[in-house]
Amino acid sequence: MKRNVIKPTILPGFMELLPKEQRIFNDIVSKITKVYEDNGCLAIDTPIIEKAEVLLAKTGGETEKQVYSFEKGKNNLALRFDLTVPFARYVAQYYNDMTFPFKRYQIGKVYRGERNQRGRYREFYQCDVDIIGKDKLSINNDALVISLASKAFKSIGLKDYRFQISNRKILKGILNELQIANVNKVMILIDKYEKIGKELFLCELEKIIGAEKSKYLNRVLDIKGTNKQIMENIIKLNLKDKYFIEGIEELNKIYSTLLMLGVEEQEFEINLKIIRGLDYYTGTVFETILSGNESYGSICSGGRYDNLAENYTTNILPGVGISIGLTRLFFVLKEIGFIEKYKIDKRLDYLIIPIGDTMEYSCEVMRALENKGLSCTIYFEENSLKKKLSYANKIDVRNVILIGEEEVKSKKVKIKNMLSGDEIIIDSIEIL
Amino acid sequence: MKRNVIKPTILPGFMELLPKEQRIFNDIVSKITKVYEDNGCLAIDTPIIEKAEVLLAKTGGETEKQVYSFEKGKNNLALRFDLTVPFARYVAQYYNDMTFPFKRYQIGKVYRGERNQRGRYREFYQCDVDIIGKDKLSINNDALVISLASKAFKSIGLKDYRFQISNRKILKGILNELQIANVNKVMILIDKYEKIGKELFLCELEKIIGAEKSKYLNRVLDIKGTNKQIMENIIKLNLKDKYFIEGIEELNKIYSTLLMLGVEEQEFEINLKIIRGLDYYTGTVFETILSGNESYGSICSGGRYDNLAENYTTNILPGVGISIGLTRLFFVLKEIGFIEKYKIDKRLDYLIIPIGDTMEYSCEVMRALENKGLSCTIYFEENSLKKKLSYANKIDVRNVILIGEEEVKSKKVKIKNMLSGDEIIIDSIEIL
Repeated sequence: MKRNVIKPTILPGFMELLPKEQRIFNDIVSKITKVYEDNGCLAIDTPIIEKAEVLLAKTGGETEKQVYSFEKGKNNLALRFDLTVPFARYVAQYYNDMTFPFKRYQIGKVYRGERNQRGRYREFYQCDVDIIGKDKLSINNDALVISLASKAFKSIGLKDYRFQISNRKILKGILNELQIANVNKVMILIDKYEKIGKELFLCELEKIIGAEKSKYLNRVLDIKGTNKQIMENIIKLNLKDKYFIEGIEELNKIYSTLLMLGVEEQEFEINLKIIRGLDYYTGTVFETILSGNESYGSICSGGRYDNLAENYTTNILPGVGISIGLTRLFFVLKEIGFIEKYKIDKRLDYLIIPIGDTMEYSCEVMRALENKGLSCTIYFEENSLKKKLSYANKIDVRNVILIGEEEVKSKKVKIKNMLSGDEIIIDSIEIL
Repeated sequence: MKRNVIKPTILPGFMELLPKEQRIFNDIVSKITKVYEDNGCLAIDTPIIEKAEVLLAKTGGETEKQVYSFEKGKNNLALRFDLTVPFARYVAQYYNDMTFPFKRYQIGKVYRGERNQRGRYREFYQCDVDIIGKDKLSINNDALVISLASKAFKSIGLKDYRFQISNRKILKGILNELQIANVNKVMILIDKYEKIGKELFLCELEKIIGAEKSKYLNRVLDIKGTNKQIMENIIKLNLKDKYFIEGIEELNKIYSTLLMLGVEEQEFEINLKIIRGLDYYTGTVFETILSGNESYGSICSGGRYDNLAENYTTNILPGVGISIGLTRLFFVLKEIGFIEKYKIDKRLDYLIIPIGDTMEYSCEVMRALENKGLSCTIYFEENSLKKKLSYANKIDVRNVILIGEEEVKSKKVKIKNMLSGDEIIIDSIEIL
């Protein structure tokens, strides 16, 4: 019989994993979840589809073009393109039911119809933490969220990440002092610094603000050294602009709090070139590079916003958040060989293989194992012993128990350790 | 300043929970996950958006009308409306990378633009297990998947569920013997039995197959008693149709295997009225009711299909699966007061409240707690002691540590147990 079949494929720009890699992906998710929960963050889960008018209240330009939006009945719907906008809506909606500061985490899929490129996905996981205050929110929270990203990376054994931290107010103050008219244009250019390289950056910068100011600004952006030296050199600029002064103060506070929270000096660097595009951030901003693999872009970003939910409420809700772009991170970790070496336990404690008509006793053994909290599965298929053992070799199991008619009579159980190859015989399943 | 704000709302038919209920929802998800994983099921995660031609390869009628589909660029896209069709596509696509029988679980959101009714959601979680074989698959797997649903329900403390189990072949055999022409019409009517009630059912049935056959069929559907009695009475019909004989044999096997796997008699009943509509099932079918709350419909359904992936491959892949409709189940559990009584640990071990300028030592204490694997958060905000303590009372924490300047000097730590109100002072954080 020949039937017509549809070729089984998924859309380009979507990540789908085989079970072996999926286990590692899920292990990473549960480690990040544990870090977030152990630090007091509450889980929320918002719909993937929302009213378009709600999701698109603030965006425009690039983002809006990328949004998956469509009509269903009389409604204009859109798929969420991040977890921050739905969170803003959530906080505004349930404001009266909340205890502030409200620390929430959310791990979920978001959608952007981006041009298909390596490492860019149209459906991807974000692992977000945001802390939101009522009217005010301590700057220590900015350091805390970065420390959570640090703990998350450490918990999965990642080493070569480096947070790039700045505060937009510092740059804003400097640009004020330089009396630059087209601040946005300069900001967008600085945001592209790493991508276009120093020479092109300087050339473009001169066109916007002239040679003299360019020289000054570039000297500031180029300050190098230890974090301490960078801070000192920025302070030495000695500008009187109030944003500059505020920004320095905040950044200094974050610096010392990061150390108190156990983030080590070599995990982060102060980098005034960090801007985070035209996003809603107003103070602290940060990105995260993988040293030696900077070209993949940031794997975790975030920052401070004065008023997160201003489109949905007149309450003032300052916040600070991080987002780990897990799908992209996983892609990069595959590329650099990290996933291949990722340590993860064998997934099953026991496989029971009945031989002959021994289902009843096999089930009894399985239930005894389960009662001891061990993971276990039975091979049910009627097949040759060879095929049964070949299955055992393939499924990533620690121990195999063969149960033939002899075992049923004697109630003895032979256990084969699949790692060592050792076999032991135990007198009764009670002592397992 | 008065700004225009958009009212923060979500679409009707979408479930969104406050953090307290979300914690319980997530706890249920992780318990179900543990049951599935401990029994050897592998996790997969398929895209929520797929090619419309792939997702809609088989459906038609009701389901297709409910699907969220739209265009993006040149592609016709659709949101998945269950996890079975994407799984069929997945198995066909990665067939050569798989070890059969392949046991997979998937817990994720699916989308159906259903008419908005109580307990019916347009975005809802399904928690699926499917076991799929190459060419053949032991009937014991049908019992296994039901036993997993049983374990899942037990793991969350649910008691009043009752599996309703049948095998389509039995009914098919009976209808064959009765020489009924319009089998589908009769099947659809039987499927509605519980909904429309016995009288209307009988009236409609007579119109299709006449009084005599109706009487016979109704007598069969109405067989009551213990499972053993029901089985015996069905066997006594003594029909020679091969489907009938096969169906009896399979159902008998499932019955005995269920008991071997630890599912108790009172957890299930054999019920020939179970059909599962016009779905792809070919043998075993089952639904799950909550005794006393039958009107909410099935909270877990599934069955056997001869050839799951026939739209995507010429390989023969028989399978059997279950799906727990978690969003609906959660809704019902709220309605019947189960969620309110759900036992769940306090979410945090410690809250540290710095008083005065004690951030550094507070962070030290926090890190000491974290190193011992305890969950912990610091209250960072500058507020009155009263406000700080009020926060502690609201956030569901086991112990509170106040750290003032005295504690910094003495290195002693006072711990208040929020359950008992007891306070103890310990000499050093080392002994925590």
